[in-house]
Amino acid sequence: MKYVTVQPSVSNSITIRLSLPARPTAVSELTSTVDEAGGLVTGLDVTSSETNRMAVDVTIAARDPQHADHVVGMIADIAGVEIGKVSDRTFLAHLGGKLSIESKVPIRNRDDLSLVYTPGVARVCMDIAAHPENARRLTIKRNTVAVVTDGTAVLGLGDIGPLAAMPVMEGKAALFKRFADIDAFPICLDTKDPDEIVRTVKALAPVFAGINLEDISAPRCFEIEHRLRKELDIPVFHDDQHGTAVVVLAALTNALKVVDKKLADVRIVQCGAGAAGTAITRLLLHAGARDVVVADIHGVVSRDRDDIVAGENPSLAALARDTNPRGVSGTLQEALVGADVFVGASGPNILTGQDISTMGHDAIVFALANPVPEVAPDEAAQYAAVVATGRSDFANQINNVLVFPGIFRGLLDAAASKVTESLLQAAAIALAAVVPDDQLNPTYIIPSVFHPDLSKIIAAAVSRAARE
Amino acid sequence: MKYVTVQPSVSNSITIRLSLPARPTAVSELTSTVDEAGGLVTGLDVTSSETNRMAVDVTIAARDPQHADHVVGMIADIAGVEIGKVSDRTFLAHLGGKLSIESKVPIRNRDDLSLVYTPGVARVCMDIAAHPENARRLTIKRNTVAVVTDGTAVLGLGDIGPLAAMPVMEGKAALFKRFADIDAFPICLDTKDPDEIVRTVKALAPVFAGINLEDISAPRCFEIEHRLRKELDIPVFHDDQHGTAVVVLAALTNALKVVDKKLADVRIVQCGAGAAGTAITRLLLHAGARDVVVADIHGVVSRDRDDIVAGENPSLAALARDTNPRGVSGTLQEALVGADVFVGASGPNILTGQDISTMGHDAIVFALANPVPEVAPDEAAQYAAVVATGRSDFANQINNVLVFPGIFRGLLDAAASKVTESLLQAAAIALAAVVPDDQLNPTYIIPSVFHPDLSKIIAAAVSRAARE
Repeated sequence: MKYVTVQPSVSNSITIRLSLPARPTAVSELTSTVDEAGGLVTGLDVTSSETNRMAVDVTIAARDPQHADHVVGMIADIAGVEIGKVSDRTFLAHLGGKLSIESKVPIRNRDDLSLVYTPGVARVCMDIAAHPENARRLTIKRNTVAVVTDGTAVLGLGDIGPLAAMPVMEGKAALFKRFADIDAFPICLDTKDPDEIVRTVKALAPVFAGINLEDISAPRCFEIEHRLRKELDIPVFHDDQHGTAVVVLAALTNALKVVDKKLADVRIVQCGAGAAGTAITRLLLHAGARDVVVADIHGVVSRDRDDIVAGENPSLAALARDTNPRGVSGTLQEALVGADVFVGASGPNILTGQDISTMGHDAIVFALANPVPEVAPDEAAQYAAVVATGRSDFANQINNVLVFPGIFRGLLDAAASKVTESLLQAAAIALAAVVPDDQLNPTYIIPSVFHPDLSKIIAAAVSRAARE
Repeated sequence: MKYVTVQPSVSNSITIRLSLPARPTAVSELTSTVDEAGGLVTGLDVTSSETNRMAVDVTIAARDPQHADHVVGMIADIAGVEIGKVSDRTFLAHLGGKLSIESKVPIRNRDDLSLVYTPGVARVCMDIAAHPENARRLTIKRNTVAVVTDGTAVLGLGDIGPLAAMPVMEGKAALFKRFADIDAFPICLDTKDPDEIVRTVKALAPVFAGINLEDISAPRCFEIEHRLRKELDIPVFHDDQHGTAVVVLAALTNALKVVDKKLADVRIVQCGAGAAGTAITRLLLHAGARDVVVADIHGVVSRDRDDIVAGENPSLAALARDTNPRGVSGTLQEALVGADVFVGASGPNILTGQDISTMGHDAIVFALANPVPEVAPDEAAQYAAVVATGRSDFANQINNVLVFPGIFRGLLDAAASKVTESLLQAAAIALAAVVPDDQLNPTYIIPSVFHPDLSKIIAAAVSRAARE
């Protein structure tokens, strides 16, 4: 089986409290054992040292939990070592949850109380009752976004349910705050019924100025999104679809500059027709792509494929109508021959370097399956001019965090009521332009999520597009 | 019409920016005009003073918005005055809403991102999927409460809708934070259908460790509360019912000490059979009261009253079964004759001092209608030994803020799944005991909401009761 080599990562860090005999070589025995076990020491404190024994806290990055256990086992085998508490940095960071709700108003005395609660608050309520539009001035609505999931498609983990989805939704809300100063709250729904999800989100809508759908499985996510967009007067954004599509369009815009090709001229193969794949295809078409061939688990999507003719999946049938102008059929591998661009939003290790070598000259490969891409990026790079993945340990990370904060900042600033393809395209153009032409190169087609002005630049473009 | 004299209040404060001729008497003309108009100067800044004119910001407490307009008009009539911007302190305090959602984790770099979001977060999700009980350790659930309303009975304002209810729910959440360090979030529902409210709250429940129902009109609130209590595994508390009932029981416990009577011996007249009145009656009965007579808009509630016999209102019929042991009938006034305790949770000015004078010796009067009590407290005080109201400008304010933060703190600390009458009684006993016997007197039967240990004391009692 092919795989991508995984490096030790802080996301698999452990801190071990241990004691060992106070011999001169104690610390070096410890660190060399960690090295030997393939771990990475990222911190070491001798917390006490007595005549015979010393106590040490050592923090070690491992590859995964099994590897962490292996490292602990190797350390335990050092002569005279006693292992104490082993704590996991990731779990420590999550203790008590990652969000707090704070009061922005002081409540020090009766006067304060009478301003922010009864009796003073009654006048503010009556003002909003008479002028509902004032809710955006006088309540948290203006800056508040719901992060809504039913827990059916969480990361690559599948249907783990609303409670287990919480850490992701809280993390998302934390990112909203960090990158766009937006107040976001996790809404993890204990139902998978699209009707009930739509009804619930509509019932909640008064508090919010925007809805971010998250990790809802396809094709249910399409129906939920379409119905909410039709029935609500606030923007509805499905990050797995639209966030991914915007980053792909931005990255592709820059990658095409690097290889000096035009979007309207290139042959694109899009693998995967789930939430992300469908939205990517739609946005590429909107932006001017003319030759997109979609492949899914059954091969190339074409109007005459049996399941399309049978009309089993309306969103796939619509894709078949709007793509594949040359009437290609067959396998993904067959479609790839001579193609300029491969975009994968599917599963791990479905292509080899050999497959990539059949693409046209100066090929572009976006292998976005996470954590294991469609093709090993180092192999792909032997045959393609530009390679991007969803991973942080390779160049060109396609990461939704690049855009969702800025897009919502722009939507809220404009008090927008709708998300349109034009608005998403504006966000992609703004994101692409953050990398100046003179800095563009095959390993730098997309900026870092920590670029200081990123969200502001995207917000300004989205806000402008929303107002137009 | 009888009324309660209203004093100028900061909840009706305005700040006027004005300029006036720089004559020696300028400031005193201004302040004496405010005095004359019945306003109260609470702040005055001369922001600039030139040869001929001076600019002044003056903050004035008024009785109500009309009175504030009157004060501004009187000031405008001072010779040479020009009125600039008039701003309203209450509205200023509400600009942008009263809550923010903050990230508790730093996101400074890629390492932080990999701990609190992908890929690290996936391990935390999987842990919760395998052990759902860990959600209380690893997410915000443990400390998070939903403040749920449909906006149908907001303060005394009636059915003003979910959007206009927001300032109250945000204020409530701010109080949760201030008094019990609880993260509370407003859920203002765009539906009045009890089925849909129940369904929606159930769908939302994974995120929360408790549900605080708020300002939902009776009798719908009873059904919603009962169904949610049955179907959820987290505590459901309706502050308008249970919060009020706890404070009344605590205040009555202390008032009875003041007049040296026993709860089991006194005759109690409860006026109002809405959310608060019904819950007060229920809790008083649970605590040992034996002679409670309930009156509503149609007079005394008795088993043989026509509408009770007709079975129009099941919750009222249940009250009729459990109260009125002496089979009283007739008007509220008739029931009052010889009674020891009057508790009003109804409407303004329905009783006179004369009515109170017919009560037994050392009568206790809790006139809780807000902002205008059932009987003017100064008149009631001429005939009753102890008088309490819901207002902050009289002694003995019966205010839910005294208890809901501490009750929820206790529920969350104990990871409680139910709210019971015994638990509410424990909260009331704890609240009553905060006023030591040697400090008890007719004008001090209940502590201030700013008593520093109040929530902790109530939380400890509730937590103990919940664990039993």
